Amino acid sequence: MDCIFCRIAAGEIPADVIYTDEEVIAFRDINPQAPVHVLIIPGEHIASLAELPEEKSVLVGHMVDVANRLARSEGISESGYRVVMNCGRQGGQDVLHLHMHLVGGRQLAGSFG
Amino acid sequence: MDCIFCRIAAGEIPADVIYTDEEVIAFRDINPQAPVHVLIIPGEHIASLAELPEEKSVLVGHMVDVANRLARSEGISESGYRVVMNCGRQGGQDVLHLHMHLVGGRQLAGSFG
Repeated sequence: MDCIFCRIAAGEIPADVIYTDEEVIAFRDINPQAPVHVLIIPGEHIASLAELPEEKSVLVGHMVDVANRLARSEGISESGYRVVMNCGRQGGQDVLHLHMHLVGGRQLAGSFG
Repeated sequence: MDCIFCRIAAGEIPADVIYTDEEVIAFRDINPQAPVHVLIIPGEHIASLAELPEEKSVLVGHMVDVANRLARSEGISESGYRVVMNCGRQGGQDVLHLHMHLVGGRQLAGSFG
């Protein structure tokens, strides 16, 4: 198991975990791009969005629910936030384990660099 | 009905629609930020991610499925892409009707401006 996010999910690598349930884990990004920058990942190893089978898309719906809940608990639900999933090389995906960025707490500009 | 995306969904305003089903409509962004820049919206008016009830999160899962399908049909599934949902003022949400950006076809840089 050489996937860093699988190892975080397994508790083998420390992370600032702020939410967990049977399907997903959420922890603060180690290199935050804003006052709130949380990663939400499934416990199951799915390499990327492009490899998500349609029958598992409900999982992404749940990840969005968790993002919305965390936006409320982090106090950014009213001010605003951004949810981003990068897929593959040109998408800028850094870790090959499906993940959703939840970012807010400051004015965000362009989403596509 | 003064929501521009509701009017696009109703066919009252022309758009370059590339996909439609009973729940969602996808059309090319009028101001594309990359060679592929598609917006996926629900037909139902939901103002933002923060106002999405949990029982409707399956809808976002479906929007992600549509994004993945369109990434394949647009030829960017292998090269990579980004899926973004902006919520509220600091998130940079421009139209107050829930929408998902699907962007690819070039190397994308930072997601948070």
